[in-house]
Amino acid sequence: MMIYMPVAMAIVGLIYMVVKKSWVMKQDAGDGKMKEISDHIYEGALAFLNAEYKLLAIFVLIVSIALTAVSFIVPTTHWLIVISFIFGAFFSAFAGNIGMKIATKTNVRTTQAAKTSLPNALKISFGGGTVMGLGVAGLAVLGLTLFFIFFFWFFMGSVWTNTMDMTIVLETLAGFSLGAESIALFARVGGGIYTKAADVGADLVGKVEAGIPEDDPRNPATIADNVGDNVGDVAGMGADLFGSYVATVLAAMVLGNYVIRDMGGSIDDVFGGIGPILLPIAIAGAGIIISVIGTMLVKIKSNDAKEAQVMGALNVGNWVSIALVALSCFGLVTWMLPETMQMNFFGEGLQDISSLRVFYATLVGLVVGAVISSVTEYYTGLGKKPILKIVQQSSTGAGTNIIAGLATGMISTFPSVLLFAGAIWASYAFAGFYGVALAASAMMATTAMQLAIDAFGPIADNAGGIAEMSEQDPIVRERTDILDSVGNTTAATGKGFAIASAALTSLALFAAYVTFTGIDGINIFKAPVLAMLFVGGMVPVVFSALAMNAVGKAAMEMVQEVRRQFRDIPGIMEGTGKPEYDKCVAISTEASLREMMLPGLLTIGFPLVIAFVPMIFGMDYLAIAEMLGGYMAGVTVSGVLWAIFQNNAGGAWDNAKKSFEAGVMINGEMTYKGSDAHKAAVTGDTVGDPFKDTSGPSMNILIKLTCLIGLVIAPILGGHTVETALVSSEEEVSIEMTVDSQDLAKATVDFYTIEDGKKVFKSLVFKGSKTEVEREIKAFEASLTNNSGEATMVIENIDIKKG
Amino acid sequence: MMIYMPVAMAIVGLIYMVVKKSWVMKQDAGDGKMKEISDHIYEGALAFLNAEYKLLAIFVLIVSIALTAVSFIVPTTHWLIVISFIFGAFFSAFAGNIGMKIATKTNVRTTQAAKTSLPNALKISFGGGTVMGLGVAGLAVLGLTLFFIFFFWFFMGSVWTNTMDMTIVLETLAGFSLGAESIALFARVGGGIYTKAADVGADLVGKVEAGIPEDDPRNPATIADNVGDNVGDVAGMGADLFGSYVATVLAAMVLGNYVIRDMGGSIDDVFGGIGPILLPIAIAGAGIIISVIGTMLVKIKSNDAKEAQVMGALNVGNWVSIALVALSCFGLVTWMLPETMQMNFFGEGLQDISSLRVFYATLVGLVVGAVISSVTEYYTGLGKKPILKIVQQSSTGAGTNIIAGLATGMISTFPSVLLFAGAIWASYAFAGFYGVALAASAMMATTAMQLAIDAFGPIADNAGGIAEMSEQDPIVRERTDILDSVGNTTAATGKGFAIASAALTSLALFAAYVTFTGIDGINIFKAPVLAMLFVGGMVPVVFSALAMNAVGKAAMEMVQEVRRQFRDIPGIMEGTGKPEYDKCVAISTEASLREMMLPGLLTIGFPLVIAFVPMIFGMDYLAIAEMLGGYMAGVTVSGVLWAIFQNNAGGAWDNAKKSFEAGVMINGEMTYKGSDAHKAAVTGDTVGDPFKDTSGPSMNILIKLTCLIGLVIAPILGGHTVETALVSSEEEVSIEMTVDSQDLAKATVDFYTIEDGKKVFKSLVFKGSKTEVEREIKAFEASLTNNSGEATMVIENIDIKKG
Repeated sequence: MMIYMPVAMAIVGLIYMVVKKSWVMKQDAGDGKMKEISDHIYEGALAFLNAEYKLLAIFVLIVSIALTAVSFIVPTTHWLIVISFIFGAFFSAFAGNIGMKIATKTNVRTTQAAKTSLPNALKISFGGGTVMGLGVAGLAVLGLTLFFIFFFWFFMGSVWTNTMDMTIVLETLAGFSLGAESIALFARVGGGIYTKAADVGADLVGKVEAGIPEDDPRNPATIADNVGDNVGDVAGMGADLFGSYVATVLAAMVLGNYVIRDMGGSIDDVFGGIGPILLPIAIAGAGIIISVIGTMLVKIKSNDAKEAQVMGALNVGNWVSIALVALSCFGLVTWMLPETMQMNFFGEGLQDISSLRVFYATLVGLVVGAVISSVTEYYTGLGKKPILKIVQQSSTGAGTNIIAGLATGMISTFPSVLLFAGAIWASYAFAGFYGVALAASAMMATTAMQLAIDAFGPIADNAGGIAEMSEQDPIVRERTDILDSVGNTTAATGKGFAIASAALTSLALFAAYVTFTGIDGINIFKAPVLAMLFVGGMVPVVFSALAMNAVGKAAMEMVQEVRRQFRDIPGIMEGTGKPEYDKCVAISTEASLREMMLPGLLTIGFPLVIAFVPMIFGMDYLAIAEMLGGYMAGVTVSGVLWAIFQNNAGGAWDNAKKSFEAGVMINGEMTYKGSDAHKAAVTGDTVGDPFKDTSGPSMNILIKLTCLIGLVIAPILGGHTVETALVSSEEEVSIEMTVDSQDLAKATVDFYTIEDGKKVFKSLVFKGSKTEVEREIKAFEASLTNNSGEATMVIENIDIKKG
Repeated sequence: MMIYMPVAMAIVGLIYMVVKKSWVMKQDAGDGKMKEISDHIYEGALAFLNAEYKLLAIFVLIVSIALTAVSFIVPTTHWLIVISFIFGAFFSAFAGNIGMKIATKTNVRTTQAAKTSLPNALKISFGGGTVMGLGVAGLAVLGLTLFFIFFFWFFMGSVWTNTMDMTIVLETLAGFSLGAESIALFARVGGGIYTKAADVGADLVGKVEAGIPEDDPRNPATIADNVGDNVGDVAGMGADLFGSYVATVLAAMVLGNYVIRDMGGSIDDVFGGIGPILLPIAIAGAGIIISVIGTMLVKIKSNDAKEAQVMGALNVGNWVSIALVALSCFGLVTWMLPETMQMNFFGEGLQDISSLRVFYATLVGLVVGAVISSVTEYYTGLGKKPILKIVQQSSTGAGTNIIAGLATGMISTFPSVLLFAGAIWASYAFAGFYGVALAASAMMATTAMQLAIDAFGPIADNAGGIAEMSEQDPIVRERTDILDSVGNTTAATGKGFAIASAALTSLALFAAYVTFTGIDGINIFKAPVLAMLFVGGMVPVVFSALAMNAVGKAAMEMVQEVRRQFRDIPGIMEGTGKPEYDKCVAISTEASLREMMLPGLLTIGFPLVIAFVPMIFGMDYLAIAEMLGGYMAGVTVSGVLWAIFQNNAGGAWDNAKKSFEAGVMINGEMTYKGSDAHKAAVTGDTVGDPFKDTSGPSMNILIKLTCLIGLVIAPILGGHTVETALVSSEEEVSIEMTVDSQDLAKATVDFYTIEDGKKVFKSLVFKGSKTEVEREIKAFEASLTNNSGEATMVIENIDIKKG
């Protein structure tokens, strides 16, 4: 029954989401002008979504056909992976849809509330964020769990049989994760290009050429700009975390399955013998309820509250959530796992691991999530040393400002990478790669809360835009600005969280991949593997360049359209002519989706080329699997570095520029907006924009998708070859079978395989009815004799002991 | 006798160098003003060298003490490594000294020659480059070969005994390479900071604030600026290539030694059984003579020649050299190697490799050297597509110019990395890691020629500066400008060559390291190894940031000094007051050497921490060796990427700016210097300067030094543990010994070791007199029984067959 617990919790989360949503929708949406602008943004967002869905449908169709073909050619891949892929894509898209809709409905209500009350404005904007967060987390857990239940029933009759069968269940489930991450590619990369193209286009012509302020309704690109905030920061971030969430849980389940294998092929627990596999879903389920509690704690009382109070309120919710997750991890781990487990540590053999050590691994994950946010805040936060340094360097021009920003982003990799490296090491030392995956799962448990905090930022930003465009009382903008300013901070720390989650997720996927393929690790002393490590390292760099160029191209199209409207529409500057907002929205939409093709192709194409081209040339499959593993490692290491570098450099430039708004002290003089130093800082921000909003966050998708593609093609490369490897001689296989009084049999097959010219000891355990076990043994025997190679064998004698 | 051939060739090269040098020195050094300026530059360069030598002496002393301590603690490390380290440092420093002196003497002679004849100016400036190139290559080959001869005599009595003894010879020789690369750290990183600090300082106050042209003698920093060209591009590049050259040959020798081991422990050839070890030195020796021939071919005839003719003359010399190296490789490989060799391919066992395949591997190296230059030229060359794009993007401001430049650098990693990956793969497929190392050796064979081409650029640049400062006829500057412009192109392609050499050298060192330590490859599926791969990937990024910040700090000190002089020295702007050039030189010198400490410490400290800290905590040495290997791989992959990115982005910005000098077409309008677009391009160049002249080239040193440090501490980590690993039981050792009629014995010891919990088959062969072989067997036996662990054994019966 435990298996239904996460479903129930996901449903509770979704119900709370619906309640919260209807509460938000019931709030006053303001007067005519406000409503009109809000409707424009809403429609623009829908236009983007619809265009995206069309492209997505084609993409999903192509991939589905490919997957179907694969599932018919490769005996170990089941066609149901196509179904789970489609549903994964659909669930993620649906969650994004909920988020976009609520965000674009909440913005105007926040503006309206800000007319009278800051606490209410926070409540509404954060309420919108909560809907988004719970939608993503609820649907992710619901979808993943339901499919697991279904496949567990379909392939295994809902009863544990053996590791191999469960491997097929989880391989099929990987389709769900692949679907989710594919949507993230469109939402994050396409969205990233959209938001910056609209932003740059609006600024370049509006602010610079026409000299009108930001968010001025006379600017034709202003609606596209506001839509962009939602497309990038709401839908993009949501899909990114949806993908991480699902992939993390999946990877932990895969590794849980191998824990059971290492423990002799089966365990006795009250969860049908699959406690280690269920644990990650259970943590995710608990995380949803905890996030609901956390969001309830976010509130302020005073109408005169400042940024610090708002930030404090968010922090209370966040920290309580993290503490509760730690508590629940302790409970779930000690309850669901055997007190002592055996885990196979690569190169060190089987070791006894207590369940408490798994709990420590989850703590590592929670610490990483918390610390990476602080690191990000230090390097990008207003008033912090790195920002002050960039401000100082702005006085000698744009060149030195840019060098300082680049250097800040680069140096910020130091603590971040040491943190990740320490986390990998520690969680692995505690509980192997299962520990690494559970560290990631624990960190991701508060996804709903994190997203609520993240999504509230762009909502507040939009609310400010609406206040400006609808010419409200300055106090309204002041109030939304307080929320917006806090939102900027949470956006930066949220990006840190997203990178950390992507990094840990990829590592967990990487571990799952290696275990799936059954290869003997990834040895970079083999030249082809080393070559692929290089190639993998290069891909994030080229991807980033393509994404940056894409922004440039899309922005240029926007600039030309805005210029055209200013030229062709009479009275537009006087406010009598109406700009054609929808044309700008259409341009952003089309350009962003078109320009994401090339980087997307790079992401998907490279692993496929590495896997299938050598196959055509008859290369050994396990050698290919190892090469692909080298590629995955290269992408992950380099991708994490470039993500941190670009996000933090971009964030630092942004806040260095913002520092001038309140005035900064340079060489003993107060310097403000409009000064030469400020202009230099604006140039830095221009460079930083695509860094932090397009190419930087796209790295997350690149590394996760790369590892997921690897996982999905793992069965082709070697998923089940461990069991069919050659043995060198007859004596080296021993089979022991015991049959108990209820005629339930258990057989242990010990044998050596030849891998890389070395003898490697393997052990398989079959359990079930006597007939079933005998069938399994026959199949094993057949797999040995079917092999062509140096030595084949027939097992003649099987010891059968009556237990 | 073959062993003395490279010595002879090196001496021929050095004699030619001395002849060429005295020829250059005999040329007319011009009139009083020119001489005076030239003397200033010469003295400035000497001042830097002297300051550097002081620091170097301290550094060499500290490292020597550390190495001495290590050699007394670790039984497998001999104290002679200290001597070879000191001589390696000395030879490299001496080569740099020769180069700096001749460069700063040639510049004024080139100016003088340019008064009447362009062909003569080329002849003299290229003559200076030739002296530099031959000094570096000659001393490198001479030093390395002499020490090899000495150690071969000292440890082995100049007669092949076995792989283990030769390993000690080569490990001790690694000290020479470490010494050379340490000098490169100071010359390249310190020099890189020097040259940009002086350049930025001179430009910021001179050009921007005081409004005087470049190279104006009224600017106090102008001498420092000209010294900087020599410090960075002559001494820095020279030390970099000296280091690569030595390291490559050393790594190839190490791997040659293992080829002999794989062939059964000894081979019969006319080179005393060490043909595969001598081959790389022989190729280097031949390369010196070939370079001499190549440099003789570089000449032009017409006084009205343009850039294309000068470039053509250099190309003739270069291509002929490469072709001759290919020919000589064919001759040497087929002559010196056994027709068929056995090489152990990791995971694939022993394979038969014909000597022709080794020749193909050397061709791979030559192709990489040639192609990488073309790739670099495409991304950074005037008039090429990427540059034109950056020029176009300059019209919308510095922000878009910088994004375009960054993107260009990033995209340029695509062909470069694919080229490297292909080269690794191909040369490995041809002849294993020995093939990779020989590919690097072949590429580096033309080092003298490459350096001649490289060093001629800054000489011509200086010559132009002297013409400007001494107010010569414009035709003089025009002629030197032609040479300078060609020099800019060769500087960019030279950087490409330096990266390629660093990359291949590091790979060869990496392979030598793995083989030295005897670890079972580098498996990144072990979490600690993966963690170190991350850390290694981060170090080049942080190093680059530190180097960039160092330039900023040093430049600021220079700016303040120049400002002070303009303020305090009366009549300086009118040309009546004399600027204090030496103060600026002193500031550059001190600041650069001080600021290189932190990045230097990072480079040296990280591998030491990774090696020794876990040792304190009692971690298994082989596990540490594998972690360190992961770190080395991370540094190499990330370092190569960042080197390409930074060098090419910097080169692209530079030439985008230069494009404006001749005028460029932007949006249908001709745009020139002084336009807004040009100003944007100048900002881009400011960012690019530390990229291409400081942090980018420093990556070469970082990756090579990291791998060298690994190689030097390899004996501590496990150098000889393969032979002492435990066997699981007595039966599993078999020793067969044959004694021929001359009482020469050969023993084959077959045994299993336990590595990573797996049984691994090992075979050792001992050859020599019967007494010697019996001693070896006893030592082997002792190494088994000395071990504490699961199972030890005593060999009781040795079959002795009379052959």
